[in-house]
Amino acid sequence: YTVEFVKSTSSMALVSLRRCLGAVLKNGAAMVQTRSYSAASGYLKVTTENDIATIAMDKKPVNSLNLEFLTELSLTLEKLENEKCKGLILTSALPKIFSAGLDILEMYQPKEERLRQFWSTLQDVWLRLYGSPLVTIAAISGHSPAGGCLLSLSCDYRIMADNYTIGLNETKLGIVAPFWFVDTMHNVVGHRQTEMALQLGTMFSSQEALSIGLVDRVVGEGETVDAAKKEMSQWVKIPGYARQLSKMQLRKPTIDKLVARKEDDINYFATFITKDGVQKAMGMYLESLKKK
Amino acid sequence: YTVEFVKSTSSMALVSLRRCLGAVLKNGAAMVQTRSYSAASGYLKVTTENDIATIAMDKKPVNSLNLEFLTELSLTLEKLENEKCKGLILTSALPKIFSAGLDILEMYQPKEERLRQFWSTLQDVWLRLYGSPLVTIAAISGHSPAGGCLLSLSCDYRIMADNYTIGLNETKLGIVAPFWFVDTMHNVVGHRQTEMALQLGTMFSSQEALSIGLVDRVVGEGETVDAAKKEMSQWVKIPGYARQLSKMQLRKPTIDKLVARKEDDINYFATFITKDGVQKAMGMYLESLKKK
Amino acid sequence: YTVEFVKSTSSMALVSLRRCLGAVLKNGAAMVQTRSYSAASGYLKVTTENDIATIAMDKKPVNSLNLEFLTELSLTLEKLENEKCKGLILTSALPKIFSAGLDILEMYQPKEERLRQFWSTLQDVWLRLYGSPLVTIAAISGHSPAGGCLLSLSCDYRIMADNYTIGLNETKLGIVAPFWFVDTMHNVVGHRQTEMALQLGTMFSSQEALSIGLVDRVVGEGETVDAAKKEMSQWVKIPGYARQLSKMQLRKPTIDKLVARKEDDINYFATFITKDGVQKAMGMYLESLKKK
Repeated sequence: YTVEFVKSTSSMALVSLRRCLGAVLKNGAAMVQTRSYSAASGYLKVTTENDIATIAMDKKPVNSLNLEFLTELSLTLEKLENEKCKGLILTSALPKIFSAGLDILEMYQPKEERLRQFWSTLQDVWLRLYGSPLVTIAAISGHSPAGGCLLSLSCDYRIMADNYTIGLNETKLGIVAPFWFVDTMHNVVGHRQTEMALQLGTMFSSQEALSIGLVDRVVGEGETVDAAKKEMSQWVKIPGYARQLSKMQLRKPTIDKLVARKEDDINYFATFITKDGVQKAMGMYLESLKKK
Repeated sequence: YTVEFVKSTSSMALVSLRRCLGAVLKNGAAMVQTRSYSAASGYLKVTTENDIATIAMDKKPVNSLNLEFLTELSLTLEKLENEKCKGLILTSALPKIFSAGLDILEMYQPKEERLRQFWSTLQDVWLRLYGSPLVTIAAISGHSPAGGCLLSLSCDYRIMADNYTIGLNETKLGIVAPFWFVDTMHNVVGHRQTEMALQLGTMFSSQEALSIGLVDRVVGEGETVDAAKKEMSQWVKIPGYARQLSKMQLRKPTIDKLVARKEDDINYFATFITKDGVQKAMGMYLESLKKK
Repeated sequence: YTVEFVKSTSSMALVSLRRCLGAVLKNGAAMVQTRSYSAASGYLKVTTENDIATIAMDKKPVNSLNLEFLTELSLTLEKLENEKCKGLILTSALPKIFSAGLDILEMYQPKEERLRQFWSTLQDVWLRLYGSPLVTIAAISGHSPAGGCLLSLSCDYRIMADNYTIGLNETKLGIVAPFWFVDTMHNVVGHRQTEMALQLGTMFSSQEALSIGLVDRVVGEGETVDAAKKEMSQWVKIPGYARQLSKMQLRKPTIDKLVARKEDDINYFATFITKDGVQKAMGMYLESLKKK
């Protein structure tokens, strides 16, 4: 069923990943073999050990973020908070990809109510992750464009596998990252790097990302989660309440900005994405995917 | 005609350039020979090729920014926007100098109306250049102090020839860079570097400028424009509308700040510059120039 | 007299310095021999030479900041301003320590009036130092945690002796640096480094501090003051009025923020520090010191 195939593979940032992911998309079987995780009912595989939770995103083939995925992620983050977990490692259960970002099918010929819920849930995920009382470490085990990059940037620390790419590449697809994506990157790499990266829609290699501070450490293939656990052990030693208050001193102004403009941001997104030109461009892109 | 000579050579930032420019100023003939451009009626030589415009500043001897120059630059920037040009390369037609900055004669014993128009036009140039929908690349082919540095910093990308100097050196002349000069530098090199550079009035060598991110690339003498064209070809591939919106997300707050304070800023400048002490200092400086 | 001993050695940030300072604290005699300064009536030794003042902090054993020390520092800073001094070098007269930060005894079982005066005086010291019209250079001759780090960061330039440590390590002690500590660090090393350093309470080695821009230069043991004098000679050449105005353009927003919230900040501190949990933790810490 072609539409279903498109539905499962399309993703806002996929276009820029085509070359990198060629092997993955062409060979689903190989992909499944490489995965060491067993099939899960939901999109997230959550394991907890000594108050440290690991969320492995597991929505084939590229962890594209649709409404159901975001809802599950938001609820899981809330649950971990309530369970007084101390740390969270966010990673992917799929090979070569962390997350390909927002699911383009949520934005193509959308129904208004679902579209608004989709965006609102994305906001909720960010608010919860960026302001999380837990120590949050992204184990970026594969490519991480657009929304995948946002998830990474919202954590407290980023460890990336070598030879992948990461960045807010929305501009290259003809769309614009929302202001809170921009703010989140700004808080990590500063004004100049953000301005240039956003204008060009730059996808950085792991090493380039390290050199501008977009990630904090680069490790070998398959080593991100172990490295994250080791790093986590240092962070959870710090008195939690003081650490959380310190974190919020730095992040609260950025969080407050979205909270104050949540509705405006939804309206802006819904208006922008349903413009004729934007819809036509997405239609042509999806058409090109079907032909493959 | 001494006064005319002074008029043509004086410039706010010239003092710090005296040593570097010694050869240029002493030998006008050599300077003309080096220039490959023919005489132009205006102060700007504008050429356009494949939607990429090049503005070569051509006001001998040091591209000092007086009211007429700034008016021509403002109108040219407006015209290129209206012509739907995609890119702009800003460079100098003169050897060894990009621009020496504001013309000190606009500020010495000024008539109030012209003084206010001068400053207002400088604001307009900055607002138009910093917020330009075009991709803007500075090909910094020579020294670039004060106002010359501001023009460079307002572009999207900076390529500088080796062995020159660049910086906001106003402090060294006993004056103070206006807040929007400061904001523009802040957005490129951050708070700490801006604070130190502004306090000390630092002129950075090309290599130093590269190391703190004040320029993005350093190339050999005479290679800035070619390098700018090559860089430009990457930028104009990006979907223009999305790129412009992304740029404005980063720059609009800084632009809005001046727009809101335009009149206050003119009043402040007019009051500061006409103070007895400041006028006396400028008088003595001009006197010292005449004696040469 | 045990309590007096505790009083003289306790300091908010001391805990993290225990290993580094072991030798110092165990051997008061050795410490005195190393000091080349003679006994002073106050806590500060102030010398002035060619309009450059040097304040050597001299409150044994670790220059902990209590109300009397802060009052003397505030008055001294005011006096140097009134005397039209051009430059200030802030250093320590004690070996191996710049300042260990706020005196914990000011915060343990405090009388409300003194507690509020203590905090208000700390605010005054920072407002005066951060906004000082003088060129201010920190000659960081030893460890510089918490409040010691704040004093350093409030200067215009930082020269640190090798093989010591510096940082805002409040989080490690279970408390939280006030917002203006955070702002001051933010203005030096940017958002990302501040966020990480504050969350972890990181104490940076001299070389690490240099690599992230927390200090500007690292020199050998005993060379900080000479290096500061040499650096100072460059800064005082700059026209003073223009330099001061430039400095204030960068620092005034941060200063205005505390001025506007001075009372709120005192109330917040007084409420936070007198909480049962915080008091108990301090009590246990002081108890552990007495037993040594």
